[in-house]
Amino acid sequence: MTTHAGVTERGRDIAARVERFVRDVIVPYEKDKRRDSHGPTDAMVQEMRGLAREAGLLTPHILPDGGHLSHRDTAIILRASGLSPLGPLAVNTAAPDEGNMFLLGRVASAEQKARFLAPMIAGTARSAFFMTEPSDENGAGSDPSMMLTTAKPDGNHWVVNGRKTFITGAQGAKVGIIMAKSDEGATMFLVDLPMEGIRIERVLDTIDSSMPGGHSVIALENVRIPADQMLGNAGEGFRYAQVRLAPARLTHCMRWLGAATRCQEIASDYAVRRRAFGKALIDHEGVGFMLAENMIDLQQSALIIDWCADALDRGEAGTVESSMAKVAVSEALFRVTDRCVQVMGGTGVSRDTIVEQIFREVRAFRIYDGPTEVHKWSLARKIKRDRTPRDPH
Amino acid sequence: MTTHAGVTERGRDIAARVERFVRDVIVPYEKDKRRDSHGPTDAMVQEMRGLAREAGLLTPHILPDGGHLSHRDTAIILRASGLSPLGPLAVNTAAPDEGNMFLLGRVASAEQKARFLAPMIAGTARSAFFMTEPSDENGAGSDPSMMLTTAKPDGNHWVVNGRKTFITGAQGAKVGIIMAKSDEGATMFLVDLPMEGIRIERVLDTIDSSMPGGHSVIALENVRIPADQMLGNAGEGFRYAQVRLAPARLTHCMRWLGAATRCQEIASDYAVRRRAFGKALIDHEGVGFMLAENMIDLQQSALIIDWCADALDRGEAGTVESSMAKVAVSEALFRVTDRCVQVMGGTGVSRDTIVEQIFREVRAFRIYDGPTEVHKWSLARKIKRDRTPRDPH
Amino acid sequence: MTTHAGVTERGRDIAARVERFVRDVIVPYEKDKRRDSHGPTDAMVQEMRGLAREAGLLTPHILPDGGHLSHRDTAIILRASGLSPLGPLAVNTAAPDEGNMFLLGRVASAEQKARFLAPMIAGTARSAFFMTEPSDENGAGSDPSMMLTTAKPDGNHWVVNGRKTFITGAQGAKVGIIMAKSDEGATMFLVDLPMEGIRIERVLDTIDSSMPGGHSVIALENVRIPADQMLGNAGEGFRYAQVRLAPARLTHCMRWLGAATRCQEIASDYAVRRRAFGKALIDHEGVGFMLAENMIDLQQSALIIDWCADALDRGEAGTVESSMAKVAVSEALFRVTDRCVQVMGGTGVSRDTIVEQIFREVRAFRIYDGPTEVHKWSLARKIKRDRTPRDPH
Amino acid sequence: MTTHAGVTERGRDIAARVERFVRDVIVPYEKDKRRDSHGPTDAMVQEMRGLAREAGLLTPHILPDGGHLSHRDTAIILRASGLSPLGPLAVNTAAPDEGNMFLLGRVASAEQKARFLAPMIAGTARSAFFMTEPSDENGAGSDPSMMLTTAKPDGNHWVVNGRKTFITGAQGAKVGIIMAKSDEGATMFLVDLPMEGIRIERVLDTIDSSMPGGHSVIALENVRIPADQMLGNAGEGFRYAQVRLAPARLTHCMRWLGAATRCQEIASDYAVRRRAFGKALIDHEGVGFMLAENMIDLQQSALIIDWCADALDRGEAGTVESSMAKVAVSEALFRVTDRCVQVMGGTGVSRDTIVEQIFREVRAFRIYDGPTEVHKWSLARKIKRDRTPRDPH
Repeated sequence: MTTHAGVTERGRDIAARVERFVRDVIVPYEKDKRRDSHGPTDAMVQEMRGLAREAGLLTPHILPDGGHLSHRDTAIILRASGLSPLGPLAVNTAAPDEGNMFLLGRVASAEQKARFLAPMIAGTARSAFFMTEPSDENGAGSDPSMMLTTAKPDGNHWVVNGRKTFITGAQGAKVGIIMAKSDEGATMFLVDLPMEGIRIERVLDTIDSSMPGGHSVIALENVRIPADQMLGNAGEGFRYAQVRLAPARLTHCMRWLGAATRCQEIASDYAVRRRAFGKALIDHEGVGFMLAENMIDLQQSALIIDWCADALDRGEAGTVESSMAKVAVSEALFRVTDRCVQVMGGTGVSRDTIVEQIFREVRAFRIYDGPTEVHKWSLARKIKRDRTPRDPH
Repeated sequence: MTTHAGVTERGRDIAARVERFVRDVIVPYEKDKRRDSHGPTDAMVQEMRGLAREAGLLTPHILPDGGHLSHRDTAIILRASGLSPLGPLAVNTAAPDEGNMFLLGRVASAEQKARFLAPMIAGTARSAFFMTEPSDENGAGSDPSMMLTTAKPDGNHWVVNGRKTFITGAQGAKVGIIMAKSDEGATMFLVDLPMEGIRIERVLDTIDSSMPGGHSVIALENVRIPADQMLGNAGEGFRYAQVRLAPARLTHCMRWLGAATRCQEIASDYAVRRRAFGKALIDHEGVGFMLAENMIDLQQSALIIDWCADALDRGEAGTVESSMAKVAVSEALFRVTDRCVQVMGGTGVSRDTIVEQIFREVRAFRIYDGPTEVHKWSLARKIKRDRTPRDPH
Repeated sequence: MTTHAGVTERGRDIAARVERFVRDVIVPYEKDKRRDSHGPTDAMVQEMRGLAREAGLLTPHILPDGGHLSHRDTAIILRASGLSPLGPLAVNTAAPDEGNMFLLGRVASAEQKARFLAPMIAGTARSAFFMTEPSDENGAGSDPSMMLTTAKPDGNHWVVNGRKTFITGAQGAKVGIIMAKSDEGATMFLVDLPMEGIRIERVLDTIDSSMPGGHSVIALENVRIPADQMLGNAGEGFRYAQVRLAPARLTHCMRWLGAATRCQEIASDYAVRRRAFGKALIDHEGVGFMLAENMIDLQQSALIIDWCADALDRGEAGTVESSMAKVAVSEALFRVTDRCVQVMGGTGVSRDTIVEQIFREVRAFRIYDGPTEVHKWSLARKIKRDRTPRDPH
Repeated sequence: MTTHAGVTERGRDIAARVERFVRDVIVPYEKDKRRDSHGPTDAMVQEMRGLAREAGLLTPHILPDGGHLSHRDTAIILRASGLSPLGPLAVNTAAPDEGNMFLLGRVASAEQKARFLAPMIAGTARSAFFMTEPSDENGAGSDPSMMLTTAKPDGNHWVVNGRKTFITGAQGAKVGIIMAKSDEGATMFLVDLPMEGIRIERVLDTIDSSMPGGHSVIALENVRIPADQMLGNAGEGFRYAQVRLAPARLTHCMRWLGAATRCQEIASDYAVRRRAFGKALIDHEGVGFMLAENMIDLQQSALIIDWCADALDRGEAGTVESSMAKVAVSEALFRVTDRCVQVMGGTGVSRDTIVEQIFREVRAFRIYDGPTEVHKWSLARKIKRDRTPRDPH
């Protein structure tokens, strides 16, 4: 029911085709057994991508010339891809690859694009973004300025040492983007994976299960990286991270909005079909009201995504907008999926439908990419700045 | 921070001027003592309207030719007027007049417009809409099909009998629109007020205090109305009510969004200025998070209003959209004003600022124009219709 | 439905009689017009107290010898008195007198009791507790250690200077307890009111309206107090404030639990009697569920009050328990009264029933006696103390 | 911090020993790999039970003579056992065995007790309760009166046919209690498992993973049961189900309260130890407030469990009380575990601690044993009965 002012005809067409493809071709894969606790196997992903490629829908938000569709167009396409948790993997709009492709598209050199970005766009290479560090007792975790990983020059190479955690998709990735601190400041490097010195200490077991490779703790031990694999310039790592930050945060919202929309469809159909105490479930206000609240939450999620996408399309940083969207959407979708589980009772907590998985995914989403509380904290600081009286001169 | 795609330059200009006028000229009237428990006296209203007239801002959303600005333009203008609870009264965008003017602009004859609508647009006549009936034990209240008020033809007149309740502004109004049931069905009539046979049984004492005349219980006892004062055609009353319904519901949201925005400004300033336990209130996350949640709630309210206004501007009925907007906005603004009260502590529950009044107004708003639960009920029915499998042929 | 283990037969009997008295005799006074915006006039209070005295129910929780019933017994008696907002005033269990009587009973000398406490117990004198100071920009407000009011010895007198705010019932009170800072530390004094040097700057207009005299801002200007009117010892003011603190906080919970219980009765009766869309309101799950949630919230409020009262009866300070009870009960009762308003629709926001007033009172209760956030803050500190590893030796 | 009036010295002692046993001996088993998606293997359960037996803590709430401790004593013992999801399995207080033992203790004949109950108490036999039926499209599910499973006499046997769903622990159970409809009405039977004609169609994959055997869909196909295996009398099945109902519902609350308490300990320790943005996590109000809210929710859960246990100990049916407790506790514990996850960020959604599992278990608990909405519905009906005016004669 969302309005699509700002959306192009082309975007709308791609989104419609992605939606049809996900519903008809990918949803049946949800019953496919080829998966571990982190997600489908790479073989299954490649099989689905083959179908997407045939359908002309692989990496649908990136143009043949490497340009990206607008954020507004991307919003409806990624939302359509998210109707199944497998959809983004199938059409290559999944995290962290989508954000990594966006970053490389903006910052990488032509040579780097050919070597690292091209196979990602072609859907043959997965990637990982090595930024978050273990918070341990001194709290580096969510505070990027406290980064401990170092990059030291050594002839025509850089030598990187440190530890990273919660690195999504590292297991099985072919491309890595590593953030480290050189004398010039935060600096990013591109590497082929696997690579000597990059050791997966362990893959975390987590509540979510839609990201192949899971989330790893990584040791970086004397990783020797040729100088021409530096991404952009030394000392600009934080600036590049910002380039990736708001759009990647927002694409999470887009995909999970699709998934929660699917839950609402499943729960609504269930409530229309099943009867209890003499009438259809949906005719019980206790059930109908939950679905009505979902309808509103879903619509409002779509609206704030579009609003933030508009800001990005106008060239704004979107930091505040994407914080607002992240909090609003992740919390709303958690309410939505929680209500869907509840509406469906015993079926809701079983894997007979995809609702149970999406509920778990969205629980994690409230933490991934900055927990709700960190965003509220930064919004409060924004309010303080805006309302603090200025010096009169 | 709202985007204004769909808003015209003219609308934006009027809104900016209304905002300036309300902030500079009307806010000081908030301390004016000329008011009873229902709102400012008519004298005070006329004084404020005189100033609005001088500023060229009286009835700013209606063009000289009687046409209305778009709903999107109206949204930002009415929101600006709502920055003070006195603002809509001052610039003549208040309920129920605003909705009544909209209705007459659509349905009244030229003669009726000259006689009844013109003084309303000129800000010299208040009006009342006689529709809701006492629910008593048989439940007519929110169920319009159970209307008991009758209109019987008698020569060149209609004779109306019945009872109405919660008639906002009846006390002191000069124009009345009465809904009654004739043999042809629901039918509307225009009357001058006061009028023989229309008796105010009592004015309710209510939690809100921004509507001059308050909300009355009314007896209609052999009210004789000349036939040419029928509004439109006999039997079309419900259709006309629908014309008024969604837009009037939405303008409530617009005005109260302005009021809640004002609360957020006051509470933010308070939190920036006051200190507790060694730091500014806003630096306490317990306070800062509440203001951050408000920031999101206010933005989402603006977005869903705009979205519904877009639907109305496209000529859609907007029934579903305005139900969604009414629930989302009224509940969000209640949270917002409640948090503002809480942030300000003892000051929040005192009348030292306007926050206390706006909190009470918004509490009533969750019930006026259809309580949240009635809207959820109708949204659940919409979901049921949409998801019930169609007969295949 | 609360269990009353720990409650005595006598307590139960008094509570039953208070309940009968409030329901039969005091509830009709709710329609009495003798009141201003802060509460009933003193004449009306005296009239009700005369009836309570005749019924043997004046100050029912204090024994003829000045002793107090247990906190558990007090809980059910004060709850019964609170079934009407007028009840505590009628039977003399209202704030701040109840807490002040408790304090004087514990700390005052025999002479002081005869002079100051006796008329309070007899219901002929109201009292005020001058502790809170204006928070202004330096934040003294909720932080008692930052008290600025001073007491300086001058011969056989003390001279007190300072400012106090939110002093409930000061207007019209005959007894005052003043907290000030002497060289020895925080010190309390008893005074007759009105008194030279104690000037009511203004009485705040607030959302609540059940406390005669309202809440005042007070200037203390060279108030000369004879030395024998010091309460207890110099420097022990904070200790005495602690004596009063937890019990007074809890009696607020008791009274408002009674009031919210009354709301639930009124809303339930309304929902049983009224019909909408073809059935009784209560048969709509949207309504019935709200009343069911209230039933649970009310029961849990009773339980946590009893639990805290038990701790106090065992002689514990009850600081943590009363903070937990204050947060849980005030927030729960706000939800309860808010739902009652909502269930009753237009009637809920009108003064046709007492629900509207109680809703406003409970809104203020979430702030009075320490806002929710201050209690959560102190509970978090308690958790930190409890879970911080101890030094091993 | 709960008070234990009503709790005996013996109960307190057992609870303390169970707590020590679970913390010291069972918690380390949480890292044991011997488990499938439904819970630990039977071998692992037997190993833990061996340790409990040695410690004299197996089936600690049932006396050697078969009598049960009071519900109040049971409350603190089962809560202690629940501190690990493995605890109830280890000490034999887990569902559904605990409720089944309670039922057999009340209703079974001496012979039946020796044959079916004794091995359950000895911890060598698991059991299953075959009551819930598939709701399908005609809605039998949560509405026991619509039971479709039939029992027909055939000589000295009964022949049972039907389908059951969500039968916890059926896979691997040795004792079954089957509910069916005979001409006399609902009737229960005891059977050894596995048994001819009782076929596990499939074991559901569900979000929870603490119940060995999981939850099964079962076909009952001409199950021939000797007449002396009828439990109690024909036609009394619903009455027996009521005997089991409220206590079993409440023991769920007890166990999960223990588990959520454990989460709070883990999250508090995490928040005390970890630092972010320059201070301990718990010193951030955004974190500290969540833990404070948990503290209150946990206390209130304990109180309402004790209150309901009191009612059961007084011999009341406890239907209303246990519905209230089920709603209050399951919803509160979900909030508690959700906040713990959030406080712990990435660690919260990982299996590095038990918090992630308990969060999932409690999600299911909001549905198992009657979803929240069904209980609210029955509470609303109770309110209606209580407040409907009686016929005067």
